[in-house]
Amino acid sequence: MISADRNGRIALKNGRKSPCHRSQISLLTGIDIAHGSEVPLYRQIYNELKRLIDAGALTPGTLLSSPRVLANQIKCSRHTVATAYDHLVDEGTLFSEHGVGTFVAKLPADMVPDGRLRRDNDLATFSMPPLSAFGQHLTEMRARDEADPLQIVGASDSSLFPLEIWNRIHSRIWGGGKKLLGASPQKSGHLDLREAICRLVQRTRGIQCSRDQVLITSGTTQSLDLLMRVLLDPGNKLIVENPGRPKAALLARAQGLELVPVDVDAAGLDVELGIDLAFDARAALVTASHHYPTGATLSLERRMQLLSWASRTGGWIFEDDYDGELVSGRQPILPLFSLGRNNRVAYMGTFSKSIGSHLRIGYIIAHPDVVLALEAARYYIDYFPPLMPQPVLATFIEEGHLESHIRRMKKIYSERQYLTKQEIALKAAGRFELDIQSPSLFLPAWLVAAGGTLTDKDVARLARSVGIPAFDMSSLYLTTPRRQGIVLGTGRMDVKTIPEKIEFLARLLRRSGVTRDASNGPSTWVARPPLPQPSHI
Amino acid sequence: MISADRNGRIALKNGRKSPCHRSQISLLTGIDIAHGSEVPLYRQIYNELKRLIDAGALTPGTLLSSPRVLANQIKCSRHTVATAYDHLVDEGTLFSEHGVGTFVAKLPADMVPDGRLRRDNDLATFSMPPLSAFGQHLTEMRARDEADPLQIVGASDSSLFPLEIWNRIHSRIWGGGKKLLGASPQKSGHLDLREAICRLVQRTRGIQCSRDQVLITSGTTQSLDLLMRVLLDPGNKLIVENPGRPKAALLARAQGLELVPVDVDAAGLDVELGIDLAFDARAALVTASHHYPTGATLSLERRMQLLSWASRTGGWIFEDDYDGELVSGRQPILPLFSLGRNNRVAYMGTFSKSIGSHLRIGYIIAHPDVVLALEAARYYIDYFPPLMPQPVLATFIEEGHLESHIRRMKKIYSERQYLTKQEIALKAAGRFELDIQSPSLFLPAWLVAAGGTLTDKDVARLARSVGIPAFDMSSLYLTTPRRQGIVLGTGRMDVKTIPEKIEFLARLLRRSGVTRDASNGPSTWVARPPLPQPSHI
Repeated sequence: MISADRNGRIALKNGRKSPCHRSQISLLTGIDIAHGSEVPLYRQIYNELKRLIDAGALTPGTLLSSPRVLANQIKCSRHTVATAYDHLVDEGTLFSEHGVGTFVAKLPADMVPDGRLRRDNDLATFSMPPLSAFGQHLTEMRARDEADPLQIVGASDSSLFPLEIWNRIHSRIWGGGKKLLGASPQKSGHLDLREAICRLVQRTRGIQCSRDQVLITSGTTQSLDLLMRVLLDPGNKLIVENPGRPKAALLARAQGLELVPVDVDAAGLDVELGIDLAFDARAALVTASHHYPTGATLSLERRMQLLSWASRTGGWIFEDDYDGELVSGRQPILPLFSLGRNNRVAYMGTFSKSIGSHLRIGYIIAHPDVVLALEAARYYIDYFPPLMPQPVLATFIEEGHLESHIRRMKKIYSERQYLTKQEIALKAAGRFELDIQSPSLFLPAWLVAAGGTLTDKDVARLARSVGIPAFDMSSLYLTTPRRQGIVLGTGRMDVKTIPEKIEFLARLLRRSGVTRDASNGPSTWVARPPLPQPSHI
Repeated sequence: MISADRNGRIALKNGRKSPCHRSQISLLTGIDIAHGSEVPLYRQIYNELKRLIDAGALTPGTLLSSPRVLANQIKCSRHTVATAYDHLVDEGTLFSEHGVGTFVAKLPADMVPDGRLRRDNDLATFSMPPLSAFGQHLTEMRARDEADPLQIVGASDSSLFPLEIWNRIHSRIWGGGKKLLGASPQKSGHLDLREAICRLVQRTRGIQCSRDQVLITSGTTQSLDLLMRVLLDPGNKLIVENPGRPKAALLARAQGLELVPVDVDAAGLDVELGIDLAFDARAALVTASHHYPTGATLSLERRMQLLSWASRTGGWIFEDDYDGELVSGRQPILPLFSLGRNNRVAYMGTFSKSIGSHLRIGYIIAHPDVVLALEAARYYIDYFPPLMPQPVLATFIEEGHLESHIRRMKKIYSERQYLTKQEIALKAAGRFELDIQSPSLFLPAWLVAAGGTLTDKDVARLARSVGIPAFDMSSLYLTTPRRQGIVLGTGRMDVKTIPEKIEFLARLLRRSGVTRDASNGPSTWVARPPLPQPSHI
């Protein structure tokens, strides 16, 4: 029998009325404690009190036994009970009044119609209100799959990252890092890291810049969002590569930009066509070093055309150099950033490919005034980058570990890609056309198909069904696809299993009702029976 | 004498023309290497080659000596030279052709008018083009000061964070964490962390939610940006507290929202006034648990009014609970999120106050459908949160370290605030009015001034000049300030120096030409001579 004041009100300021006195020992009758259980005692007490309150056995205003009394009853230390009480006070379930005791928290009558609080929102009755136009753009195409094939194609192999070196540097820096923690944040990024990046891009990309030209971001995704928000207005035209990255295109559209998709050929973006289509574009987004997904390098001639367009029109060039340092054996061409004299290039670099996307560190290199504007805007959007990984990364770079890792990974990625190409040539000869291109993390494989019904979406699905990371080119076009093909994520393929996987894929292709038609030359697809879906998709 | 082909062209595809043969041994005459120097040999070679190329001594197209030949000449290992060459090839300064050798990279004539490349942009001639409307909004008010007083007022004391425990957990988790690195990212945040947060807010804030209601963000700044972008359209009205956070208000304005500033009194936001002013607002942004900067707690009655408004109009409530877990000794009121049944509350929590802002981890708790939409949009804006700190934080929470730390810090912050209040009462009696409020990280001190010329900006400046983190209330009003006062950042003040600092401030105030005027009662300011500026500001 609990002798609490049933109306549950404690007058706190206008004269106190203690609802009850020393009779709450009866409270204990309801408390069920298991000594020796895995659940800590204080947690059991906490749970039991919650249960009694939720069940209405302890009503608002009830004065609880003192920790000492309750501890005596259930044979534990007073401290244990006090801990449970403290937790309940902290969360607002109990209310402690100095010199009096601890009460079940007071709640107004209209909130607790049945004498107890229902804390859960009624989730089931919710109907989602319309999102903003921006939100609608971004959510309509997005399924909640954790393993997005598009993201795996082009991903690096983080399992080979020298985590032990990273951890050692982390311990070295943060073992005595309290002082570092208390310092004011450097809003464009940790100074050491910005300097390390300057030296890094000088060595690996031929870029010369100073630290006030570097802004640390959470990766190219954020870099691009920042550039578009701060430098472009809704309605502005943005030249993008076609095919290209659907993620970037979608964000641009959601921000109200008008996309101008421009064809890409073996020499990269067709700059002349782009200028014809939209001389008045405010910006062009290019993967000049290594076009995604075709692997083309923007020719020097086109680079100069693009820079000249930017100079004449005042347009911006957003250079996305997502994996430049990982591409093997190609002719060296300086990034647009270094070729241009007009300061209209904002260069986006990232550690997502060289280290791994888990790190979420990228950077923008641009004119100091541009960096200043971006940093100022980022302050309101994202404040500043996380401190802890930044000096660790700076040291990792400065001690040469990053470049060692890159050299090692370049060899591995080349090998994976070379073997994949070889196996395709061997086992699926005539089915794919593999452009001569520099090995990197992904391999574009064009479908040699005229008149067939097997789309690249189908082929990509078949590839995924045998464990090959693959994505269809069609989804990467902003217009009607000009050519069908798939992109293979060779960066994450294991040389041990590449031969058998390509063999499986070749078999599936042979069985899938499509065959090479000799009458159409050595390299065309013709449909046979309707396409069966692999059973496990 | 270098026998390179002076026109610098190497015909690569249409019949090779090797520009020179075996005479490049003369290259060595220019290379200056110091054995035994601190600079690694490969680096010296790299630097020397760069110097010769930049000086035009080595022109594009020059075939360099093989690493073996050069190594013989300068007495080092072939590998060392090869490393230097590799770096130069990687950065595009040299170009390696298989089976032939390594050349100085070819550059088109129009790019190298004087036979060499100037890589640096001409930074001085740049005139910054206009930013977007959004960018202009955010940059116009922002000076580039690294130690923003507004941010220090309200900041936690990171120097007391148990970094050694954090490091231990980091080592434990990431010592063998390779597998974790390779896994697909969890886009709404690491599962363990989301679950730990559910249990944490249940204990500390009385919130019941499931993990699919939690989205990890980089802090309240990003949480708010996401909520406004995804749930509100330009032109929508947003109710904000007045005074309040200028950072949030500025971002809202930059996004094109129409701000509706609503007065705050001792019971928090005047909800009735807000509804009168803008019944059609699409959202209200409130620091219900602990208003910044007055410290008021939104009364239960007003909470119910606000929730009822949201239900009737479909408006959103953005609840910014930035330091709820750190406020001592106040009457427990459940967060709006837990009181509401309408799922129109998006709760923003953060670890910036309990741990430190360096961490950049916060969270949004909302209906699962809202979280899904936010996560989908965030994918395009910021991809996903950094992986490494998340399981560390989850463990730090689950093992109870966070709550121990919070309990410890609450005591410390209370003590600092109590002492500050006491010293002000003692040494600057009648100059400030200190509302009765719950101790936390900051202390609002209203100026008792009628007819004086000393503004709160002046007083805040004086306070900062003696080392007290302080900010003026006037800057926190979106309208003409109703009342002048300063906010003291007691969370970062040391009990050892509080008495002397307050003493210094009191002296400065006495000397600053303003004194209490007895004729106006015991608590008013009257100007004497013009206000002198402290010399070091």
